[in-house]
Amino acid sequence: MQFVFSFDYPHEIAPMNLKHLLGGKGANLAEMTSVLELPVPHGFTISTDACRAYIDGGWPDGLTVEVDRALTELEERMGKRLGDPGDPLLVSVRSGAQFSMPGMMDTVLNLGLNDVSVEGLAAQTDDPRFAYDSYRRFIAMYARIVQGIDSMEFDRLLDAAKELAGVDSDGDIPAELLRYLVGAYKELVASETGQPFPQDPKVQIRGAIEAVFGSWNGPRAIAYREREGIDHRLGTAVNVQAMVFGNRDDNSGTGVGFTRDPATGDQGVYGDFLVNAQGEDVVAGVRMTEPLAELENHFPEVFHQLMEIFERLELHYRDMCDVEFTVEQGKLWMLQTRVGKRTGMAALRMAVAMTTDAGIKLSKEEALLRISPDHLDQMLHPQFATTKFEVLTTGLGASPGAAVGKVYFTSEAAVLAHERGEDVILVRKETSPDDVHGMLASNGVLTSRGGLVSHAAVVARGWGKPAVVGADQLIFEGGGVRVGDNLIREGDEISIDGTTGTVTLGRLPLEVAEPPEELDLLLQWADELSAGHMSVRANADSGPDAEVARRFGAKGIGLCRTEHMFLAEDRLPIVRRMILADTPADEEQALEELRVAQRQDFLQILRAMDGLPVTVRLLDPPLHEFLPDIEALLIKESNGTLTKEDEKLLEAAKTWREFNPMLGVRGVRLGVLKPGLYTMQVRALLEAAMELKRAGGDPHVEVMIPLTISKPELAYAHAWVEEALAELGADDGLDVLFGTMIETPRAALLAMEIAEVAEFFSFGTNDLTQLTYGFSRDDVEGKLMPIYLAQGLLPSNPFKVVDEEAVIELVNIAAKRGRSARPDIKLGVCGEHGGDPESIASFVKIGLDYVSCSPYRVPIARLAVAQSLVREG
Amino acid sequence: MQFVFSFDYPHEIAPMNLKHLLGGKGANLAEMTSVLELPVPHGFTISTDACRAYIDGGWPDGLTVEVDRALTELEERMGKRLGDPGDPLLVSVRSGAQFSMPGMMDTVLNLGLNDVSVEGLAAQTDDPRFAYDSYRRFIAMYARIVQGIDSMEFDRLLDAAKELAGVDSDGDIPAELLRYLVGAYKELVASETGQPFPQDPKVQIRGAIEAVFGSWNGPRAIAYREREGIDHRLGTAVNVQAMVFGNRDDNSGTGVGFTRDPATGDQGVYGDFLVNAQGEDVVAGVRMTEPLAELENHFPEVFHQLMEIFERLELHYRDMCDVEFTVEQGKLWMLQTRVGKRTGMAALRMAVAMTTDAGIKLSKEEALLRISPDHLDQMLHPQFATTKFEVLTTGLGASPGAAVGKVYFTSEAAVLAHERGEDVILVRKETSPDDVHGMLASNGVLTSRGGLVSHAAVVARGWGKPAVVGADQLIFEGGGVRVGDNLIREGDEISIDGTTGTVTLGRLPLEVAEPPEELDLLLQWADELSAGHMSVRANADSGPDAEVARRFGAKGIGLCRTEHMFLAEDRLPIVRRMILADTPADEEQALEELRVAQRQDFLQILRAMDGLPVTVRLLDPPLHEFLPDIEALLIKESNGTLTKEDEKLLEAAKTWREFNPMLGVRGVRLGVLKPGLYTMQVRALLEAAMELKRAGGDPHVEVMIPLTISKPELAYAHAWVEEALAELGADDGLDVLFGTMIETPRAALLAMEIAEVAEFFSFGTNDLTQLTYGFSRDDVEGKLMPIYLAQGLLPSNPFKVVDEEAVIELVNIAAKRGRSARPDIKLGVCGEHGGDPESIASFVKIGLDYVSCSPYRVPIARLAVAQSLVREG
Repeated sequence: MQFVFSFDYPHEIAPMNLKHLLGGKGANLAEMTSVLELPVPHGFTISTDACRAYIDGGWPDGLTVEVDRALTELEERMGKRLGDPGDPLLVSVRSGAQFSMPGMMDTVLNLGLNDVSVEGLAAQTDDPRFAYDSYRRFIAMYARIVQGIDSMEFDRLLDAAKELAGVDSDGDIPAELLRYLVGAYKELVASETGQPFPQDPKVQIRGAIEAVFGSWNGPRAIAYREREGIDHRLGTAVNVQAMVFGNRDDNSGTGVGFTRDPATGDQGVYGDFLVNAQGEDVVAGVRMTEPLAELENHFPEVFHQLMEIFERLELHYRDMCDVEFTVEQGKLWMLQTRVGKRTGMAALRMAVAMTTDAGIKLSKEEALLRISPDHLDQMLHPQFATTKFEVLTTGLGASPGAAVGKVYFTSEAAVLAHERGEDVILVRKETSPDDVHGMLASNGVLTSRGGLVSHAAVVARGWGKPAVVGADQLIFEGGGVRVGDNLIREGDEISIDGTTGTVTLGRLPLEVAEPPEELDLLLQWADELSAGHMSVRANADSGPDAEVARRFGAKGIGLCRTEHMFLAEDRLPIVRRMILADTPADEEQALEELRVAQRQDFLQILRAMDGLPVTVRLLDPPLHEFLPDIEALLIKESNGTLTKEDEKLLEAAKTWREFNPMLGVRGVRLGVLKPGLYTMQVRALLEAAMELKRAGGDPHVEVMIPLTISKPELAYAHAWVEEALAELGADDGLDVLFGTMIETPRAALLAMEIAEVAEFFSFGTNDLTQLTYGFSRDDVEGKLMPIYLAQGLLPSNPFKVVDEEAVIELVNIAAKRGRSARPDIKLGVCGEHGGDPESIASFVKIGLDYVSCSPYRVPIARLAVAQSLVREG
Repeated sequence: MQFVFSFDYPHEIAPMNLKHLLGGKGANLAEMTSVLELPVPHGFTISTDACRAYIDGGWPDGLTVEVDRALTELEERMGKRLGDPGDPLLVSVRSGAQFSMPGMMDTVLNLGLNDVSVEGLAAQTDDPRFAYDSYRRFIAMYARIVQGIDSMEFDRLLDAAKELAGVDSDGDIPAELLRYLVGAYKELVASETGQPFPQDPKVQIRGAIEAVFGSWNGPRAIAYREREGIDHRLGTAVNVQAMVFGNRDDNSGTGVGFTRDPATGDQGVYGDFLVNAQGEDVVAGVRMTEPLAELENHFPEVFHQLMEIFERLELHYRDMCDVEFTVEQGKLWMLQTRVGKRTGMAALRMAVAMTTDAGIKLSKEEALLRISPDHLDQMLHPQFATTKFEVLTTGLGASPGAAVGKVYFTSEAAVLAHERGEDVILVRKETSPDDVHGMLASNGVLTSRGGLVSHAAVVARGWGKPAVVGADQLIFEGGGVRVGDNLIREGDEISIDGTTGTVTLGRLPLEVAEPPEELDLLLQWADELSAGHMSVRANADSGPDAEVARRFGAKGIGLCRTEHMFLAEDRLPIVRRMILADTPADEEQALEELRVAQRQDFLQILRAMDGLPVTVRLLDPPLHEFLPDIEALLIKESNGTLTKEDEKLLEAAKTWREFNPMLGVRGVRLGVLKPGLYTMQVRALLEAAMELKRAGGDPHVEVMIPLTISKPELAYAHAWVEEALAELGADDGLDVLFGTMIETPRAALLAMEIAEVAEFFSFGTNDLTQLTYGFSRDDVEGKLMPIYLAQGLLPSNPFKVVDEEAVIELVNIAAKRGRSARPDIKLGVCGEHGGDPESIASFVKIGLDYVSCSPYRVPIARLAVAQSLVREG
C-alpha cells in the first residue's frame, strides 16, 4: 500500500474526489497542482491509510522510506535542501482530515530550522531577527505539539526577554536577544525531555507527522467528532509542504477570499488581506485587514491573476470556493482552497443562480443537494442578531427560533402583560393544560423541567413558538428565579434561543431575513422530484395551523391531534365536566357540547386543507392530563382548603392517576373504556366533512386510531366509524379512510393482521422509540442521554434521528407485513422524525408514502425527501 | 357429510377419541356401547359438525332425513314407537360438547309424551299419576328451554293445583288434578306462542335439538368458555337416547359412582345412590342419598355387575372414571361415563399408582400428563377448608394461598401485633419499601391499589405470602376500611385467598395437606425427562429463600434481585444516606457499608446453592423507590413541618422522581449514572464467591445486567466485572459468567451484537410484554384488562400467559440472533411467565435452557417442562 502522494501524483481519479484518502486539504492541494496547474508550493500528502495503520499498530513499515523519497523530490523541485546553511528548505506539516474539523487538530510550521539553517534563513532574508524569531516560534510550537511541553514555560521566558529588552511587543525583541531566547528554549526542551532539541530536519518532520496522527485521538477532536457525527475510524491525512513567506517584505502579503459573498450569495470580490503578514495574522485579528478588492491597488497583477483563478475554481468545483493565498515577493501562491461555508440565504441563492449560470450549469438535483436543512432553519426562524452576549444558562432547545420579552411566572400574569402590549416570556417549572392560554400570550416559553416531549415542548413546537425546556439550573424561590448569583424577577427582560437552548439576560436584537424568492422555486423542484414517491404533510391541530402548513407546501395533514382542541380555555371546563359527570346524562350533555365545538374545529381544518387529505387522530392522552395537578390538590386537602369542586377534581385525579401514564389508559384504550368519547369525535368529524361537501368542498378524511395493539381492538374501533357513517347517512361518496398509528412494537409485528382492518398506517416513531428502548423521553433525555452519547453507549439521540437498528427494523417489518395483507396500504410517519432529514432518508429507503411534521419543518422535509431520493439514485 | 351416528356406529377409530365430533358424552356412550358392549340405552348422536352448520346457516340440509332414519332404527331396537298409545318410546335430548361445560347447556327429558302416549305410559306403568306428572314436567321443561317461556307461570299453576288438592308436595297431587294441570300448561303454551303445544314427537325432538344447538351461544355458555379458554367455534353435539326410569318402582334406582376415591386416590367403592329415584334427585340433594357400597344390600347382582364394569372401565380408559347409572326394574343401565375430576392429591397418587398397576401400566410420560398445574397448586398452598362463606369483595389474586388474621392498617401496628403473637393481615392502599417489615410480620397482605406487579404483589410472591391486591372497593375512611355497608376496624378478623382474590369477614378454617410422598417421585420423573432440554431455577433473593427453592428442586437461581436486600429495615437508612450524600466521601462511606452487608447476603445465597448457578441481577429499580413518598413530603412542606432530614429527602425525591418510572433511570442506566453502586455490588458478590470457594465451596456466579439496550452499554458494564475480578486477583478459576436480561424490544432485535459481550441472556418477559404492548401492568391490569378480555380484544392476559404472537416472536428472534453470534449462549427466562405452564410450553418450543420462577412455583414448572416435552414428542 502506497502511503505518500506528491501533490502532482497522477491519480486515476480526480484528486478532489479522494478526500477519504488525502483528506480535504490534501485533495484540494493536489487538485490545484495537478489538474488546475495553479501556483501551489510543492509538497506531498501522507494518506489517511497511514494514519489508520499508525493508530492500529504504530509507525507503518515503509513509511519512512516513502517520506524520505518524497522529501528528496521536494528538495529537488524547490532547489533547496533541508537544513541547508545557505538557503534552507522549510516545510509546514498540517493535518487534513476527510471532513473539516476546524481548530481541532495540529499544525507545525517552519520545520527544517535548526542551529545551522537558521543562519541560512537569516542570510537569505537578510533579516536575522526574522530568522531567529521564526526559529524560537518553531521550537515553542514543536515543543508544545510534538513533545507535549506546557507552553506557559516558553511564555515565561519570552516575557523575561521582553523585560530585558524593555519592549512590549514580541516583534521588537532584537535579534541578539532572540538568539539567547532560542538557547533558553532549547535548554527548556532538553530539561523537560532529557534530550536536546532535534536538529535533524527529518527527525523533526517524523515527530510532527506522529503528532498530527496522534492529534486525531485528542480529546477535543473526539468530542468534536461525537458532536458532528464523524466516524472515529477515518483518521487524518498529513500535508508536508514547502513554506512560503507572506511576511518576507512589503512586496509580500497574505489573504483569504471567497468567489461569491458567503453571506448573501451575491457575485463580487469578498475577502481580506494584509501586506507583509502570515496567514495567522489575518485570522487572529491582531492587525486591521483590508478588503480583498484593495489588493488591486497594492498588487494589480496578483489581483487579476487571483480573479482569474477564482473564475477557474468556480467553473472547476462548480460551487463557491474559499481560498487562502500568500504573496511572496510579488509572486502569488495558493495555499488552500475548498468549497466554502455559507449562510442559508447564500446557499439557496447560489444554488439557484448556478443552475442558470452558463458555465456551471448545475442540474436541479445538484442544486437541491447544495442546501442543508440547517440552511433552511436559519431562514425560517428569527435568530439573535448578535453573538456578543453572556450565556446565563442552557436548557434543551425544544422549539426553534429566538424570542425576547419580560418574564412572567404565571399564565394569568402573562395574559395580562400581553394585553398591556408587552412582549412576554413565560417562565415555569413545567407547563400543564392550565397554562395554554398563558403560552399563547407569550413570545416564548422557558421551563426548568421536562424534555423534548414535555407539554411545554410539544405545545410550543406545534405553534412554532420558541421554547427552551429542562433548564434545570433555574431555582424557583421567593417569587423569582435564581441562576447561580443572578436573580430574575417578574418583569425582567430575558432572551431565549429555542434552537440552541440558550438563555441570556436582557433584550438581544433579533433578526429573521425574509426567505428569498428562490426558496419557492427550489422547493418546487424538490416536489417535482418527489412526486410519486413521498409527499410531505403537516401536523396541525387548528384551522390557522392548517393554513400555515398549506402555505409552507404541506400536501395535507398527517396528524391532527384532537386533544389540543380540548385544552382551549373555553373547552377545558366542559372536558372536566365530562370526566366528573355523576350520571350518564351529565356525561352525554358534556360530550354533546364538545361535539358541537369540535365540529367547528374540524370544519375549519378541513376547509383550510380542502382537496387534500386530513388525518385526524382520536383522543390520545390519558384523562388526568385534563385535570389539575394532583399534588396541589393533596396539599389543599391537607390544609383543609379544598372547595366542593376541588374535592370532585381530587377524586377524579386519584381515579385517573397512573404510575406510568405513557403505558396506561390512553389512545384507543380510552376509547374502549369511554366509548362515548370516541364516537362523539368521529361524529363531529364526519358531520364537519359532510357540511363542507354540501358547501361544494372536497374533504378527504382519514380517521386514525392511536396506540393499537391488536386487530380485534382496531376492528372494535372501526365499528364506531361505520356506525357514525350509517347514522349520518353519509355513504354518499364521502371519502373516508380508516387507519391506525403503529407505535407499539406489537402493532408493528402484527401489521399483517392489523392491515386487514387498517387502510393506512402512520408510524408514531416517537412512541415506538420509547417502547423499543424502554425510554421515557421526559425522564431520560435530560439526565441520561448526554452521558450515553458522550460514552458512546448509543450512536445518536434516537428521539432526534430515528434508530437505524431496532426502530427502523420494526418499521420495515410493519411496512412489509402491512403491504402483504393490503398491497395498496398507505404508509406514513407522523411525529418528529418526520421532520428530521436523516430519518427521512431512512423512510424514503423503506418507500413510505408520506412524512408529516410541524408546519415550520415542512420546507425542510420537502427538501430532505428530494435529497434522499437524489442520493438513493 | 354424515351428521348422525348411532351409539354403535362402526367408527374407524375408537369413539372415545372422537370427542371433537361426538362431544364428550356422545363419544363415551358410543365407546361403552360399541367397544365395551355395556348395557347402555340405545340412542344416537348428532355431531358437532351439524351444530356448526346450524350456527352458520340454519338447520342443515339432510339432517331431518338422518334424524328420522335414526329414530326409526331406535324404535325398532327398543320395540317401542314414539307417540304409541300402548307402550310409547320416550327419549332424552342432551347436549354434550367436546369439553365439559357443567350446567351451562340444555337438556330435555321425556320427549315423545303427548296427549295420546301419556295414556300408553300410564297403562305400561300402571301409574297414571306418574305418567301425568311426567307429562306436566315435560311440557314445562320444553316450554322453558325450547320455547323460551318464563317458568314462573308454570310454577304459579302448580301452586294452584297443590292448593286445590290441599297438599304440600308436588308428588302428592292426585292424577285427576294432574290431568287438569296438563291442560292448563298446554293452554299457557298456546297463549304464549300462538300455537298448540306440539303433539308430534318428531316436532318435539326437532325443537329440542335446535334449542341445544342454540344454547351453545347462550350468554352463560359464552361466559363460561371465555373463562375456561374454550374455542367458541367448537359447537356441541346432541345425544338422543331412549329414556329409562329409575323412579319406576322400588326395584329401580339411580346413582353416581367413581372407580377410585376422587379426593384421595384410594381404591374402593365411592359414590351415592337412591332407590326409586331419577338422576336429578341424586344431584339436587332433595333426598338423603346412600353410599354406593350399600347398593350391594339392595341389589346384590346389580352391584357386582357394576363393580365388574368399574374394573373394565379403568382398564379401558386407563384412568379413574365416574359414571351415572340407572336401575330400572332390576336391570342396570349405564347412562354416562367419563374420566373423572379429582383433587390434586388424588391425581398425583393415582397417576403414580397406575404406573405400577399391572393392568393399566401407565408410562411415566402418561403419568406426568395426568397432573395439572392446578393440582400441584392445591397441594402446595393452604386453602379455605370450607366453601360456605360470604364473599366481602374481590381483588386480584396476587400471591397464592389463603391466610387469616386481624387487620392492621400500618406496618408499625402489624409488627407490634405480630410480636404479641397475633395473626396479622396487613391492609394498605398500597405498599412501599417502608412497609416491608410490616409485610414480613403479616400472614397476608391486602391492598386496594396496584396490579400484579405492584410492590405488594411482587414482594408477597417472592416470600410465598398470600396477597390480594387492587381490591378497589375498599374505601379507607376514619381509621378503618369500608366495603359497601361493612366497616372493618383495626383488630377485626378477615380471611383472604390470594389464589382467587377473595376476601371475607371473619376467620375461615384453612387446610393444607402435606404433599404426598408420590410428589417427589413424580417430579423426579419430570426432571429425568427434562434433562438435557430445560431446567428449572428459582427467583430467590435471600439465603432462606434459596434454601426453600433448593428444597423444591430448583437447579440454581435464575434471578436474585439485589434490591430486596436494600429494603431491609437496617439497610434502607444506609441506602438513603448514599442517595443523599453531599460529598463523594459520604457516598463512598455508605456504599462501603452496603458492600459489607451485601457480601454477607450473597454468601448466604451462594452457600444455599453451592454447586449450582446463581444469577445475580444488579440493582434494577429507580432510586426513588428507596425514598419516602413525595406526596407526603410535599404536604409536610406546605404545613411547614419538614424536618432537616425531610428537606433533604424531599430534594432527593424531587431529583429522582420520574414521569414514567418504568421507562426511566433504572437498570443498567442507574449503573451508568452512579457507577459506584454497581461496582460495589459486583465486588460484594465476587468477594462472597471467593470466600465460599476458599472455604471449599463450589460457587457458580452469573452477573446479570438489567434493561440493556445496546452492545456498547453492556460492554461498559462488563468492564466493572473485569475490573473487580482484576482487583480481587480473582482470576484463579472462579466460575463467573456475564450476561444480560433481554427485556427491551431493542435488546431482542440487537441480540446478535449483544451476544458478542453476553455469555447468557435471561428474558425478562414481564417488562418485554409491557414494552411490546405499551402496557404498564400496574395501570392496565385492574382497569383495562377485564374489558379487553371480555370484548375479545386480546386472547388472554399477556402478563399471565406469554403473548404467542409478538412477545414470543421477539424472544425467538433474540434466541436465534444470540445463538448465531455465540452458539453456546445460555438462554433462560426469569419472571412470572417462567412459572406459567402455557408459557413454559412456548419456551420449550424455542429451546431455551432454563426457566426461573418463584420457589413455590418450582414444582409446577418442573412438571410443566416435562409435560411440554412429552407433548412436543
